[in-house]
Amino acid sequence: MTESSTHDSQASVQHVALIVGGGPGISSSCARLFAENGMRVAVAARNPEKPVLQTLEEKHGVRRYACDASEPAAVAQLFEHVVRDIGTPRLVVHNIDGRVPGILRKTLIEVDPPMVSETIRNAAFSAFLVGQQAARCMLGNEPDANGARGTVVFTNASAALKGYPSSAAFAMACHAKSGLAQSMARELMPQGIHVANVPIDAAIGWTQEDGSRAHRLAGTAVDDNLADPDHIAQTYLQLHRQHRSTWAFEVVLRPWVEKW
Amino acid sequence: MTESSTHDSQASVQHVALIVGGGPGISSSCARLFAENGMRVAVAARNPEKPVLQTLEEKHGVRRYACDASEPAAVAQLFEHVVRDIGTPRLVVHNIDGRVPGILRKTLIEVDPPMVSETIRNAAFSAFLVGQQAARCMLGNEPDANGARGTVVFTNASAALKGYPSSAAFAMACHAKSGLAQSMARELMPQGIHVANVPIDAAIGWTQEDGSRAHRLAGTAVDDNLADPDHIAQTYLQLHRQHRSTWAFEVVLRPWVEKW
Amino acid sequence: MTESSTHDSQASVQHVALIVGGGPGISSSCARLFAENGMRVAVAARNPEKPVLQTLEEKHGVRRYACDASEPAAVAQLFEHVVRDIGTPRLVVHNIDGRVPGILRKTLIEVDPPMVSETIRNAAFSAFLVGQQAARCMLGNEPDANGARGTVVFTNASAALKGYPSSAAFAMACHAKSGLAQSMARELMPQGIHVANVPIDAAIGWTQEDGSRAHRLAGTAVDDNLADPDHIAQTYLQLHRQHRSTWAFEVVLRPWVEKW
Amino acid sequence: MTESSTHDSQASVQHVALIVGGGPGISSSCARLFAENGMRVAVAARNPEKPVLQTLEEKHGVRRYACDASEPAAVAQLFEHVVRDIGTPRLVVHNIDGRVPGILRKTLIEVDPPMVSETIRNAAFSAFLVGQQAARCMLGNEPDANGARGTVVFTNASAALKGYPSSAAFAMACHAKSGLAQSMARELMPQGIHVANVPIDAAIGWTQEDGSRAHRLAGTAVDDNLADPDHIAQTYLQLHRQHRSTWAFEVVLRPWVEKW
Repeated sequence: MTESSTHDSQASVQHVALIVGGGPGISSSCARLFAENGMRVAVAARNPEKPVLQTLEEKHGVRRYACDASEPAAVAQLFEHVVRDIGTPRLVVHNIDGRVPGILRKTLIEVDPPMVSETIRNAAFSAFLVGQQAARCMLGNEPDANGARGTVVFTNASAALKGYPSSAAFAMACHAKSGLAQSMARELMPQGIHVANVPIDAAIGWTQEDGSRAHRLAGTAVDDNLADPDHIAQTYLQLHRQHRSTWAFEVVLRPWVEKW
Repeated sequence: MTESSTHDSQASVQHVALIVGGGPGISSSCARLFAENGMRVAVAARNPEKPVLQTLEEKHGVRRYACDASEPAAVAQLFEHVVRDIGTPRLVVHNIDGRVPGILRKTLIEVDPPMVSETIRNAAFSAFLVGQQAARCMLGNEPDANGARGTVVFTNASAALKGYPSSAAFAMACHAKSGLAQSMARELMPQGIHVANVPIDAAIGWTQEDGSRAHRLAGTAVDDNLADPDHIAQTYLQLHRQHRSTWAFEVVLRPWVEKW
Repeated sequence: MTESSTHDSQASVQHVALIVGGGPGISSSCARLFAENGMRVAVAARNPEKPVLQTLEEKHGVRRYACDASEPAAVAQLFEHVVRDIGTPRLVVHNIDGRVPGILRKTLIEVDPPMVSETIRNAAFSAFLVGQQAARCMLGNEPDANGARGTVVFTNASAALKGYPSSAAFAMACHAKSGLAQSMARELMPQGIHVANVPIDAAIGWTQEDGSRAHRLAGTAVDDNLADPDHIAQTYLQLHRQHRSTWAFEVVLRPWVEKW
Repeated sequence: MTESSTHDSQASVQHVALIVGGGPGISSSCARLFAENGMRVAVAARNPEKPVLQTLEEKHGVRRYACDASEPAAVAQLFEHVVRDIGTPRLVVHNIDGRVPGILRKTLIEVDPPMVSETIRNAAFSAFLVGQQAARCMLGNEPDANGARGTVVFTNASAALKGYPSSAAFAMACHAKSGLAQSMARELMPQGIHVANVPIDAAIGWTQEDGSRAHRLAGTAVDDNLADPDHIAQTYLQLHRQHRSTWAFEVVLRPWVEKW
C-alpha cells in the first residue's frame, strides 16, 4: 500500500485535533495542515481573538477557544467544550513556550523567583494539565487503523536537551516537560496512547502573508538557520499516523546548519 | 500543500536508493516501499541469490549486488556499480546486524576475542565504509526540493542505547555505529547530507508470504511486541523526505508495549 | 602529596557547610561527616526540633535552622542567618525529596493537579531558591586551595534519569532539578563555583541507633539493595574537595545489585 | 569513622593495581598515587623502556611490562605475569587513547579505512581484552572491606559523549568503549566488580620535572583549561574505594572553564 492511499483512508476517519497554544508559528502550521488532511481542528489560546486565529477559522474552519492552560479548571472545561462541539480529540498538541517577559538572559542571581515559578507554571504545569485531560478523553477511544487511541505531542526546546547558562527557569520548565512526557509515554503507550516529545533545537521562522520571513527571536538574522513550522507540523502529523508497532517517543528537529 | 502532492512531485524525481544488507525484514520492506514510491532501488548482500531478493527483483525491479560490506574495496566497487547502473544514490540505508553466530548471551569471560572483533567489523566498520562512500557520492549531488543532497540512514539496535549484560561485543558495535552517525551528522548535515541513526528498540517481526508471522529471535512469541519492518521503512522514507529546515538525527522506534 | 595530608590542610580551613533538608538519612550523614572533617555545619528543616537534629547538635555542634525552603523570603533569611552565625557557606547541599503525601503510585489521571504543583514547588523551586542564595554568597568567596569559591550539591533521584509510569509529578520535579543544576553548572563553574547533580538510583537505607536497618520505602526488604547515606555523604565531600581542573558535574550512585 | 582512618586500613590491604597504557599523563599520575597509597603497582606499555616509566620504577617501585594491548595473547600473558609477580589485581585502569598518527582532523572522506580499524582496535578492542582478563582475575577475589572484588576503570574522552565532525574513527572507538563499559557494569557489578567509565572532557596537561607545563595537544595554550592528571588519578582512587552500596558508573571530568 502506498503512503497516499493510507492518507486517504485516514482522512476519512475525520479525527479531531486540539492544539493548545495559539501563535503564528507551529500552532498555526499545525492547524492548517491538520485541517487540510481532513481533521476537525480546535485551537486554544489565552486570547482567541488574535487575527491569525480568526484567519484560521475563516480559511480552514478551525474552532477557537479561550483558555489559560495553567488553570486546572480552565483546561478541564476546554476539553469538555471541544468534545461537545466537535468530538473527542485523537491528536492533542501542547505548544506553549511559557517564558515570562523579561526573563531572557537573566543570570541566576538576577532572576526574580516569581518569574521562575510562573515560567514553570506556564510551560510545564500546563503541559501536565493538558496531558492529563487528553489521557482522560483518549482512554475511551477505540483503537484506529494504526492501533492507537490517540496521540499527545509536546513541543519542547533546546533547553530540554541542555541547561544553558542564564536560563535556569526555562531549563527547569523544559526539563520538567521532558520528564512528564517520559512518564506519560511509559504509562500510556501500553494503553494505546502515543506520547511524543519534540524538542525544536533552533529558533522558529516562517513566511508571513506578505511573503517576508518572520521569526521569534528579535535580532536574529532570517536565514536557513530557522526551523520552518510547516515542516514541524508535518512531523507531528507523521507521529500521529505511526503504527503502534513502531512508535517514536522523542524526535529532535534542527536545521541542517545548526551547531549541536 | 498537502502531503499527497508533495509525494507525487517527489516521486517524479526518480531518486536512487541503495540498501546495504539483504534480509527478509527491514531491507526487503525498504526495497518494496522505495520502489513503490518511484525510486530506482539497489540491494547489496553477501549472497544476492537469496529467494527473497530474487522476488524483489521480479516484483519490484530491484537490482541485486554481491558485497561483503566489511571490505573497503568491495564497498567502493559496490557504489561504482550502482552509480554506473542506475545513478548516484540519494538514499543509502545501512541495515546490517553483524553479530557472529554463537555470540548471543555469552558472558564477558566466555566470549572469544575474535568474535568481538568480527562483530565490530561486520556491524560498525561496514557502516563506516558505506557511510564514507555514500558521502563521496552525495556531496556531488545537487540539492533536491527539500534542500538535501542525500540521506544516509543507519539501522541500529537497543544495544546502542544501553549496554546489556552478556552482550559486550554487540554493545561495542552498536555504540560505535551511533558514534559514527553522530560524527557524520555534525560533519555532513551542514553540507546538505541528512544522516540519521534509527535504533529499533525491539525484536523485528513481519508477515510471511503464507500469512504467518516471522521474527528474528527464536523462542520469542509472535505478538504485538515486535516492530513491523514495513512501518520502519515508512519512517526511513519520511526521514529522506524531511526538509532540511527540520532534520531529525535520531529516532528510536519501539512497539507500544515495549518496556524501556 | 597523599590524600591524608590534603585532608588535614583542608580541615584547617574550617569551611562552612549548609544542608537544606533535615531527615535522618543523607542530611544527617552529611552533617556528621562534614563536622568530623572540621567544618562548621548548619542544617535547615521545616521542623528543626526533630530528635535526629537535636542529636546532631549535641554530638557534633551542628546548628539548626527552621526554614520552608519553598518560600523565597525564608530561604533568603536562612542564608543571612547562617552567614551571621557561622560564616559564608562553602558547601551547600539541597537534599529535599518534596513528594506530597498520597502522590505515590497515582496514575496520571488519578493525581490531583495541586499535588503536582506542590511537589514541583517543594522539590524543584526550593532547589532554585537555595541555589540562587548559595551563588549570591559564594561569588564573594576567595578561591580555596582547589581553586573553588564553593560547591553546591543537589541530591536527586532515579526519576531524574527516567520518567517512570504513575509518577508524572516526581518525574517533572526531578527533571526540573537536573535542568537547574545543568544551567547553574554552565553559568557558575567558570566563575569558580562547583555545581553537582547526584541522582541516587536506589532506595536509601541506614543503620539506626539500636543497630537495626531503616529505610524510606515501606514494604521494601532491608538488604544490600539500598544506598547507604554515609557513603553518599563521602561522595559529596569528595566532590567538594575536587580540584577545579577536574570537576564532575553529574554522579549517579547506585548499589551494586541495582538493575538499570 | 573519618576518611583518614579508612585510608589507613585500606592501605594495609596492599591491593595490586595494573595500569595499561604508559604515558607521562594519567598513567604516571595513577602509578604514583596508587604506590603512595600502599598498593603494589604494575604498568604495561608497548615500550616499557621509556624514561618516564623507568623513573616510576626507581622512585615508586612500579613494575614495568611490555604489552601490545590489542593482541589477545599478549593481554592474557600480561595478566598471568602480573598475578605471578605481585598478585591478583584489585584495580585495573585502561588508559589508552589509540588514535593512529595522521588521523587528527581528517574529514570523513579523507580518512583511510585501515586507520579507522586500527584506531578501533587500539582503543576499544584493547579495552575489551583488558576488561575480560580483569574480570577473569577479579571474580576469584574475596570481597574487600567495601564489598568489592575489584575495580576496572576505563579512561575515555569527549568523543564518548559526542561524535565530533572530522573525527569518525575516534567517535566510534570512544563510543564502543562506553558500550563495553556499560555492558560490563551491568554484568559484573552484581558480581562484586566495580566498573567505571571516566570521559575526560578536556585536553590533559601536567607539570614536568623542570616545572614547566606539558600537554598533549600541540598548539594549545597551557592554561587552566587542561585537566590535571594528578587530580584525575584521585578520582580513580576514590572510585576504587567506593562502598558497593553506592557505586558510580560514569564520571565525566572537565575543567571549570570548559564549554560543554
